[in-house]
This record gives sequence, C-alpha cells and structure tokens, in this order.
Amino acid sequence: MSSRRRFLTAGAAALTGCQNEEPSTSGAHMRAYGERSPHEKPVRVIRELTASKGTGSSRTPLHEIYGIITPSALHYERHHSGVPDIDPAQHTLLIHGLVEKPLVFSVDAIRARPAVSRVYFLECSGNSVGDNRGAPFPDVQGSMGLLSCSEWTGASLRSLLEEAGLKPGAKWVIAEGADNGRMARSIPLEKCLEDTLVVYGQNGEALRPEQGYPLRLIVPGWEGNINVKWLHRLHVAAEPAMSVKETAFYTELMPDGKAQMFTYVMEARSVITRPSGGMKLPVGGGIHEVTGLAWTGKGSIRRVEVSTDGGKTYHDAELQQPVLPQALVRFRYRWQWDGQEAVLQSRCTDETGYLQPTHAEYAAVRGLNSGYHYNAIKPWFVRADGSVKHV
Amino acid sequence: MSSRRRFLTAGAAALTGCQNEEPSTSGAHMRAYGERSPHEKPVRVIRELTASKGTGSSRTPLHEIYGIITPSALHYERHHSGVPDIDPAQHTLLIHGLVEKPLVFSVDAIRARPAVSRVYFLECSGNSVGDNRGAPFPDVQGSMGLLSCSEWTGASLRSLLEEAGLKPGAKWVIAEGADNGRMARSIPLEKCLEDTLVVYGQNGEALRPEQGYPLRLIVPGWEGNINVKWLHRLHVAAEPAMSVKETAFYTELMPDGKAQMFTYVMEARSVITRPSGGMKLPVGGGIHEVTGLAWTGKGSIRRVEVSTDGGKTYHDAELQQPVLPQALVRFRYRWQWDGQEAVLQSRCTDETGYLQPTHAEYAAVRGLNSGYHYNAIKPWFVRADGSVKHV
Repeated sequence: MSSRRRFLTAGAAALTGCQNEEPSTSGAHMRAYGERSPHEKPVRVIRELTASKGTGSSRTPLHEIYGIITPSALHYERHHSGVPDIDPAQHTLLIHGLVEKPLVFSVDAIRARPAVSRVYFLECSGNSVGDNRGAPFPDVQGSMGLLSCSEWTGASLRSLLEEAGLKPGAKWVIAEGADNGRMARSIPLEKCLEDTLVVYGQNGEALRPEQGYPLRLIVPGWEGNINVKWLHRLHVAAEPAMSVKETAFYTELMPDGKAQMFTYVMEARSVITRPSGGMKLPVGGGIHEVTGLAWTGKGSIRRVEVSTDGGKTYHDAELQQPVLPQALVRFRYRWQWDGQEAVLQSRCTDETGYLQPTHAEYAAVRGLNSGYHYNAIKPWFVRADGSVKHV
Repeated sequence: MSSRRRFLTAGAAALTGCQNEEPSTSGAHMRAYGERSPHEKPVRVIRELTASKGTGSSRTPLHEIYGIITPSALHYERHHSGVPDIDPAQHTLLIHGLVEKPLVFSVDAIRARPAVSRVYFLECSGNSVGDNRGAPFPDVQGSMGLLSCSEWTGASLRSLLEEAGLKPGAKWVIAEGADNGRMARSIPLEKCLEDTLVVYGQNGEALRPEQGYPLRLIVPGWEGNINVKWLHRLHVAAEPAMSVKETAFYTELMPDGKAQMFTYVMEARSVITRPSGGMKLPVGGGIHEVTGLAWTGKGSIRRVEVSTDGGKTYHDAELQQPVLPQALVRFRYRWQWDGQEAVLQSRCTDETGYLQPTHAEYAAVRGLNSGYHYNAIKPWFVRADGSVKHV
C-alpha cells in the first residue's frame, strides 16, 4: 500500500502540471462519421491544366503521411474531364463485344459477387515529368506526389469475363469511364484474366468520387491512367481501340525518334520522403530516421538501400513488414548525421533483380524526350544549415 | 482496320445507351482534402449512456465495410468523458516514476523518433454484452461493432522507457489520458517492452480526435480500454494504480462469485458480417459469398470455418491474404443456398490452437455474470423468405 500511496501523491503533482498546460475543456459528442482534427493541415496540391473544370492533378503530401496506406482524402488525382457525380443506383457496367452473352451489371450486382481485397499502389506514369526534364519541383509532393496506395476491394474481372463467355479472337478489353471525356484505354486480355479487379471499395468504404465512384478498374502494377475510373463499359475486342489516351498521350518518344505505345508496367522506384525538399533539420547533426517508399509493378520489392553521400556508398534500409506485391513498401534507415553537407538518396531492387537506375543510366537507355515512366534515383541535398533542397 | 471500325460502331451504339442512363454532368473540381460520395450513407450508431456529453459508444457498421482496414471516419468509439480538443503544439507526454531521468516529450519529438507502422485490431472488451446476456442486438453493428482495425504508426514505448532509464522495482506502467476523466490503466512492464506503441498515425494520417489525437497507446491484442487515448502521462511504478477503470469497470465476475481483474487479452473470435441480421436475401436460394472477420489477441488466426447448418458441419473458409498478427482477417466462403431455413455461423482457431467456443462452452467456463470478453460463436438465422435474424 505504501508504494501505491506514493504513486497517488506523485500522480497528483504531475496532474496539476498537466492541467496547467492543457486547460480542461468539456469533451465533444461522438459523431456518426468522423473528421480529422482541425489542427491537421496536410492537403493535396492542385494543379489545374486548362480552363475547364477538374482537368489536371492533385498530389499526395508524401512527406506528411505515415505507413503504406494513403488516406483516401489525400489520394492523388489526375483527371481529364473533372469528377462526375454518379448515382450508383443509376450506374451500370456493360460487357460486350467478342463475348457469347453481353451483360449489364448493376453496382449492387458487382458488390454481391465473390470479392477480393488487396493493397496496391497507383502511380501516374507522368509522375516526375519535371525531374525527367531537369526541372524538378522543390519538394517530394511536387516531384513524386502522383503516387498513392490503398486497400482495394472488388470482383475479379476474370469472373465477369467468364460469365460473359469469351469468343475466339478476343485479345483486348477496352475499358471506358463515365466521365465527360469517356476516357478509354485498351488492356491486353491476359492481364484482365490474371489479376485485374473491378473495385468498389477503397480503404474499407466505398471508392471516393475522385477515385472512380462507384466502380473503377484496378490493374495491379500498371500505369495509373489504365486503371479506368467511373468504369461503365468493357468492350472485348480483337484489337486495341487506339484511343486518344494511348496515341496522343501516354506514349513515349525514344531517342531514335520512334514512340513506344502500350508501356504499361511501372518499374521499380523508391524515394526518401523524410527528410526531403523544403524541410529543415536542426543544425549540428544528430540521429535522424530517414524514411521513404519503394514500389514496383513487377511483383515485390526485395531490397532498399540508402546513401548519405550521393551514391558513393549504400546501406541496407529496414523494410516495414508486411512487404506486399505491387504495394508501397515503407523503408527506414537510422542516419547519424555529422552536421556537414550530405546527399541523401535511395535505390531499390525488385524480385526480378531489377535495380532502380541513376538519372544518367535512365537517360542512356530511355532518353529524356518522354515525360512518362521516369523512375531514376532521387537525391536530396542537405546543407550544413539543415535545409534540404532538391539537387 | 475493319475490326477497329466495327468496334467504333458498336462503341457508339453502346455509348448512346449509357448516355441515356447517365445524363452527362460537368465534372467537379479537384479538392485539397476529399470526402466520400454524398450517395454513401454508412454511419456509426451512437449510444450515449449518460446526460454528460460524449459518454458512451459509437459502433462500426461492420456489415457495410470491406477488407480489413476500417475507415478512420467509421472507427468505433468508447468514451467516458467525451472527445477533448487538443492542440498538439501544447500537448506533452510525461514519463516519470521509477525512472532514472523523468522526461517530457512534445508531440513533434515523438513524431521525429524512429517509427513503426503496424496493422492492429482494437476491440472493446464490452463488445457483445447483449449477446452474453441473451439479449443480442438484431444486427452485427449492434452486437459486434465495438471492433475496428487500422494501420497505426508511432514510436515503440520500449525506446521511450529505455531513454528514461528504468529503476529497479519497476513493474507497471500507468498510462493516463488527457480527457476530462483522466482515464488511467495499469499495464505490466513486460507488455510495454514487448510491442506497445505510442502512436500518432492512423491509416496514413494523424490519429483522429476520437481515437486519441494527438497521441495514444496501442497495446496489441489487448482490450480496447487499455489502449489509452489522448495519452499525456506514463507513470512507471512497482504496483498497479487500481484505477476506477480496473476496479469498478473492466473486471469480470466469475461463477464462483469472485471477480477477475487485469484480464487483458482479447481471445480468438470471428463473426459473419454478410449476410447478417437485418439483411434480406433473394427468395429461392442461389450462390452467396458469406464473408466476415476473425481476430485474436494471441498472434495470428490460422483457420476459419463456416457452418450453414447451425454447427453440425463446418467447411474451411478462404482467408484473405495477408493474414497479419493481431489484425482483423477477412474470410470468405462460397455458399450454395438451397432456399430453405439455414443457420450461418463461423468459428476460428488461432496459432495457439485455441478454438472459438460455442455460447454453451463459453458459459460453462466463464459464466454469464460478466459482460466483458465475450467471444462465443455468433449464429445468424436465415429464413426461407430470405430475411436474416439473430438467433
């Protein structure tokens, strides 16, 4: 009992201190649907590209988020015709073309089917156009913020196509959205049968409007644009549609002057998100956790290394478990900063053995004409005054 | 080219049909911080227990959520003194008592430390009091909705205690919240050193106010109440505090008339969330996906079985990967319903070999005096008219 009495005395003293710091306010009521604290300010940075509403992008504040799940409210956006307001009771998904039996599904019918939940990243293939062109944004949100990761839930596209019955000659599935622009992309049939999903769930609840409510495609590991939002039509065909988003956009001009089309897979990439451009470390060095994200469209990340000397030497980073295929992977590295100038960068290796290239290695193979699928190592310069800049 | 022309023709025809169904509206602008569709209605059901503000619970709509991540806006709540509004710039965490060096941490100091992100469930030990007493709620949200799961990010409590330096005799850590009631619980030191976290992140962003913003404890697999919210003090002691929440509440009256205290671990449990009480299946049978959640405070779920005949026979359910320790596990079972009366129920086995008990098995061991830690098998009665009721 005597130790208990001592505790209560000590506790009371500490409590008084705390009450001085935190004036006791009457606690608020519970809420049917919660919101974040008014003290929290992270936002997506919006760039509208034309005078028309909702054409452009908004970027995830990668330097301000934790773990591997991106909050749905901060998931990146890239729209060509704004965000449509769709009543799910009126929305349908049509499957037609080279099928035995054309089908129309209500949203409820899709929701009632056997489901799959998977954590997958999405990255816009135009992420980091500025870095590719030697004019990077000053911070990681600008340079790399067209990248997010969610737990998606939906039906396998394979099950829907099997129900419709594929006809001989079927080789492509052309997916079209119900946005004003009727955004359409052609997907090889094999990928549709392998792991593509028609999803309605994101991080436990319905898809957010800006991620395709009420239905979108998830094409694991492939460029964001092909994960068609507001999905309302799947046309099974013998040839690709050659839609504007696979001819005029999302093609890649190679050094030899020819353009590559149908470059789907997002290759292995990583970036340090803290510390990163625009941040300020306390002067004089100290121990800092260097953390960031790695991902690959080709299976799983096997290794992430961090360099603090601009790539002369690398050290293995710790990978936060679980490491999931085609999902973001959080890495961490404990850095003893000596207070001098430093260049922080990470590189990753995926399960195929592919090693993320330097900018020079990338440019030698791919050239710098294209703004798409840039995945080179991203350095951050730390000055002796603690400020962090892009290189 | 001819097949392409055919596609375009077919496409135009279908497009006309779709436009009739979905009048084209001008797409909306992007938003800095998103919200769900106005067509989406799932909410927490609030039960206020006293006339004072914010004393009671709100329950997660388990029948309406997907996957294993609970949307933060729908995470269950159980408060004893409402939700405090805390400015993180003013909030501190004090570590004192049997330590070499008492420490006060700012929230930023905790955020700057090496971090860990983990997916863990939380369950109120008073979840399903009604089922225990033979008066269950009619639906799964009422019966089981004090259950949620998030990706939490924070610092290991071990690292904080090591920095403070434990004195000989230290055996307990008494955690206190900054809510009006100064909710306090005593935690054995071993658990604090094993895997307990001081978290500030939930599903990628800051903790929500009703989950303890800006800091809370996460004590993996242990009853919700001990995961102290709005954490502002950790007192290292030789004995437990015997706080009101571990003497007058959260104790369990056994059949022999004695009460158990410090019953921390949430034992293995599962529940079918769809179909569940209050739902209606189409009359006449058909194929249905039976889905639900399983969890255990003791490591990982190894097996979930589903019965459609009230427990006479069981069939293995599919476990959605990844199966993570002390996290919710989503299970799925494809049920061919013959249209006749049926009783659906699930049972799970954890890595220790513990099998979730029936109500009778539970009552024989634990009695029914206590409303806490009830984890018996939960049956749902399906009538021939398709309606689903509690049993």
